[in-house]
Parts: sequence; C-alpha cells; structure tokens
Amino acid sequence: MKVSAQNLHAFCVEALIQVGVSQADARTTADVLVTTDTWGTFTHGTKALRAYVRRLRGGGLRKNGRPKVVSEGPAWALVDGDSSLGMVSSEFAMQTALAKAAAVGIAFVGLRNNCHYGAAGYYASMAIEKDMIGISMANDIPTVNAPGARGSVLGSNPFGFAAPAGKEKPILLDMATSTVAGGKVFAAAALGKTIPGDWLLDANAKPTTDPTLFSHAGSLTPLGGYKGYGIAFLIEVLSAILTGAAIRWQVSSWTFSDPSKPTGHGAAFIALHIASFMPVEQFKERIDRAIREIHAAEKADGAGRIYLPGEMEWERREKALVEGIDLPEDVSASLRGLAEDLNLDLNRILR
Amino acid sequence: MKVSAQNLHAFCVEALIQVGVSQADARTTADVLVTTDTWGTFTHGTKALRAYVRRLRGGGLRKNGRPKVVSEGPAWALVDGDSSLGMVSSEFAMQTALAKAAAVGIAFVGLRNNCHYGAAGYYASMAIEKDMIGISMANDIPTVNAPGARGSVLGSNPFGFAAPAGKEKPILLDMATSTVAGGKVFAAAALGKTIPGDWLLDANAKPTTDPTLFSHAGSLTPLGGYKGYGIAFLIEVLSAILTGAAIRWQVSSWTFSDPSKPTGHGAAFIALHIASFMPVEQFKERIDRAIREIHAAEKADGAGRIYLPGEMEWERREKALVEGIDLPEDVSASLRGLAEDLNLDLNRILR
Repeated sequence: MKVSAQNLHAFCVEALIQVGVSQADARTTADVLVTTDTWGTFTHGTKALRAYVRRLRGGGLRKNGRPKVVSEGPAWALVDGDSSLGMVSSEFAMQTALAKAAAVGIAFVGLRNNCHYGAAGYYASMAIEKDMIGISMANDIPTVNAPGARGSVLGSNPFGFAAPAGKEKPILLDMATSTVAGGKVFAAAALGKTIPGDWLLDANAKPTTDPTLFSHAGSLTPLGGYKGYGIAFLIEVLSAILTGAAIRWQVSSWTFSDPSKPTGHGAAFIALHIASFMPVEQFKERIDRAIREIHAAEKADGAGRIYLPGEMEWERREKALVEGIDLPEDVSASLRGLAEDLNLDLNRILR
Repeated sequence: MKVSAQNLHAFCVEALIQVGVSQADARTTADVLVTTDTWGTFTHGTKALRAYVRRLRGGGLRKNGRPKVVSEGPAWALVDGDSSLGMVSSEFAMQTALAKAAAVGIAFVGLRNNCHYGAAGYYASMAIEKDMIGISMANDIPTVNAPGARGSVLGSNPFGFAAPAGKEKPILLDMATSTVAGGKVFAAAALGKTIPGDWLLDANAKPTTDPTLFSHAGSLTPLGGYKGYGIAFLIEVLSAILTGAAIRWQVSSWTFSDPSKPTGHGAAFIALHIASFMPVEQFKERIDRAIREIHAAEKADGAGRIYLPGEMEWERREKALVEGIDLPEDVSASLRGLAEDLNLDLNRILR
C-alpha cells in the first residue's frame, strides 16, 4: 500500500484523538511513527500504533498522562513518564536533555514509567537540527539470550545515535543489541518466511530458522555474543536500574500483556552541545571530511557504494516524501485492523 | 611465565623510569597494564610496554608530557594529552570526568593528543570505587572493514563500561567494535595458529583464516556488520571529530609508525554519579538483584554458569593476585625483549 507521509500522519492523529489523546500528543506520536516509516524502519513505525491504541483503550497507557521532571541538576534529570505514550514521554525527555545540554554542554536524562518508545534513532535524531549529538536507549522485556543461558535474559535493548554533518547527510545509527530486532522476526513470521540460522535460538538454546517460535518459545541471539549482551546490560543499567524503571522480567510486554496495566519500561537520553567543544562549522567540516573519505574508499567486488550509518534511511525518507511511503503488507494489515477497531475509514484518509 | 603482580608492576616502573618517565607516571602506567594482565586481557597489558618504551625513546611519546585541561564547563572538559603516555593522559582525563561528575551528576571529557591507551575497561573501572558509572572509548588507525569496502575504514575503536554492584562483582565490559580485537589476531600469528573464518578479510575483502595478513593486507570484520561499524563511527565522532584529535588515517600506528612522531589518537570519557539519581545503596540492591536473577536463569545444555560482563575478569584477577599471573608466551617474549632493549635483568625482577 502506497501512502503519502502527510495522509499517514493524519490517520495516526485521527486514530489517537478518537481514543482521547490530545491533539498535541497525537501529533508528537504521529511524528515519531511516520518519520520511522519514511526511513524504511517499518518494524518500529505505524505498524505498532494498533497495539498502542489497544493499551490506550485498556488504560495501561494513560491518554492524559503527563511526563514530568521528578529530580534534576543542571546537567541531568529524572523524568517520570506517567505511563503516557512512549513517544510522548520520550520526546519530552529528549527535549529536556537538549535544553540542558544547550545550557551546560552535556546532559543525561533518565526516564521511568515509559512504554515501548519505537525507534531509538528518532530521539537521537532530534539533536541534529539543534547542532547537537544525540544518544537514546531503552530497556524491554527479555527476548534475547546470553552466552550459557537457555531462554531470554535481557531485552533487545535498542540504541540510537545521531550527529549533524555539514553538506553531507547526518549520521544516524538505530540498532537493537540482538543480532536482529524482534520486529524482523515477527515480520518474517507474518509473511510465512524462514529466517537465517543465526537470528534465533529455540527453547533448548539451539539455532532455529522458524520465526513462529518467537517470542513464546524462542530467544534472539545477542549481537556478537558477549558484546551485544554487555551493551544490553549497559542499557539496562542506564535506562532502568539507575532510573527506577522496571528491570528485565518486571517489564511487561507492550504487545501481549494485560492492556490495562502499565509496562514500566525505562529509557535514557544523552545530548552533547557541539558548540561547547568547538565551533559548529569546524565540527561539520571535520565530520564531512570523514564521511567523504569513507565514500571514496576502495569498494569490495560487487559493492557500488559504502554507506555511512543513516545514509540509506535519509535517502529512503527523501524518496518517501516525494513518491509516498510504500508500506509492506504487515504494516498495511495492522493499519487496516486499527481502522476496523476504531470504525475509521482508512481509504478515505489514505486516498 | 608466572609472575607476581607486584613484581611485574615493579619491572614496568623500573623500565619506564630508566627511559626518563617520572615515578608517578610510571606507576600510573604500570597500574593500568598490570591490572589489565590480571584480568587476563593479555593483548592490552604489559605486552605493549616495549612498543611504548620505543616511542618514549624516539620522542613521539613525550616522557615529560603533561596532560592539561584546555577548555571546560561544570560538566565537561577537553584535555590535551601533550603526547604523554596514553595511560597517563587517559587516567588524567577520567579523573577529571569523575571529579566533575561528583559535583554535577554527569561529565564528558574529550581527549586529544593521546596515544594507544590500552584496555578501554580500565578507565571505565576507575568509576567503580567512587560509586559512579564509567564509560571510556578511543579511536585508532583503521584496521576494520565496513560493509561494501575493500580494506580498512575505521579503527577497532574500543569501548569500556563499568558499574558498581553491592555484594556481587562490579559490571565491566571491555570490547573492540571489530568482531575480535586486532591484538587477538597478532597473538594467533605469533603462535603460528590459524584464526576462525569470520575474524578477518583479505586484501580482496574475502574471508581468510591467515592471521599473518593482518594488518598490512587484511582488515578485521566489524562486529555484526553495520552495527559495529556504526558504533565505531560514534566513537570516532566523540573521541576524535569532537575533540580535535586525529581522525581515521590521520592517526599513526602506535606499533609500526615512526616512533619520533606523536600518533594523535583521541579518546572520550563519561562518568555518572549514582547518588545524584538515587541512594547508592538502592542502586546496588537493584543491580545485585538483576545479577542474581541472571545467575539463576536456566542454563543451556553443557553450560555450567551464565557470566555477567566482567565476572570472568574479576575472578581471573582474584586468582592472579594470589597465585601470580600466568603470562602467555607472546607476553613473556615481549617483556624479555624490553629487558634486552634496556639492559634490565628480567629474572632478578621477576624472581
């Protein structure tokens, strides 16, 4: 299904307003989800809205929830998300980090009572237009194995990083700390496909190519073994242990758990104010030079280009904003389901 | 060769003093290198001292170099390492970060005119006894491939993370952003062994098991493909592009380049003051609980334990401090070479 970003945004806003979310919060949420779809990161975009709406109707996500700073210093804050939409509380937390970093050079903001926040890269990318460097991370219910374990030990705890460039495209890294994000396994299962043998372990901790085992009887492999496991633990520390959020199995699934209960996710956001360290133009010249050097490096046989982190996503976005977003079938199906849930006319909105 | 940590430390101090390093700087450097060996991270411990001494004698490492803060705010600083030993400038930079974080909750310190700094985890671990969370990272001359490239695009840019625990062992993550650190490939080459097929690419970007191709005609694979490449770029941004350090191929090899010239490495250090966010005892209870839950998780067939990041290293250290450090042959050979270079009696010192 091909839709314009504008129409998809309008549909998301209408759906959220219908279940009682304010216009402002609906727009924030739609900004996050539609931007994510324009990047081609369809596992974390509007596909998830149906589940968020179910939780809003159930009460586990509070439609009038208001994230607020509960403690702070000049360079840090702890935010309670008040179980509002993950996009609303996370956008607030990152804005808090950006404002503090603009004043004192760097800031760390921890967030508790969050929910699933979508694509980690979105919040990191908020730093770009302010000439700052952004980092974002979040914990989740365990779906990832650790060396020596049977079953899941930590979440696929995502990580995002963004930095502005000058004439080149900004850097944007958006990754799970599993070999692949669970959303990719769900997407393969929905399409009836098998998956590569190094993505998933079965209930006996043996490799499997069957995506339907996830997540009830399968665990994602950690990125590079102990390294991805270690980074996931770092994220558990900064986003949950340090913030007072739910830890590991205390987190509830945003898709499967009782929609009347909050999920308890945590997150953490870091902003660095470039102008504190060097003139912004100098930074941009330096990063542009590094990007151009990598573009000009020798290519492997059969490789046309060497991409920088985020370059594919920005190019997909440029194309999507002109030609429309080509939604995969699992995303369209989820949006159709959402429209049915709410008696909205998807065709009218997406024409 | 089995040596006591104390005697190995004394040998390192004596070697450094003989080439004109102050007692204090020699002790700092020995602290870093010997601690690293006690962890069993032999690729980044005293094995490297011979090369550092060669650069001290050549003048590329300044034996009287004094790292200093060149600009700062309450929560950040930029340090010029003055081409002193990487251990001296990095220890100074992390101490600066810890002092600032103790005052304002979080601090970021960038470092330029650094050299090879050894194990990233060491500087992160300095946070533990101060009840802080530590992060350290550094860039290096390119030795790692990127998707689509032939040859090396970024350094194996290491990353370290540490967090204190209560009754459990502190968390310590020390990793390269390549699949394995280059030091492990050099170690295999020195022992005449082949390496697994996913560690290294040859000059045509094809997988190879021949460690002797590294680094002149081989590139390390990035951890998990685009993810390790992306994290390495993040580290290049924070430790070099933002700090004014040398970037990518501007960095000189600390082992192979002209020893009369500085290498220009950059690094970055972050400290988080736990007590700013929650009572330290509460944090320690929370992290202990997560550690114990993971210890108690179901084991895979044949796995006796599930280790937390750093747990193996702390257990090796406890054993090494009691029984002595069992140095691998490539480390003993390097120390013997260093003793010959300086006409020191290794046997007298290591008895």
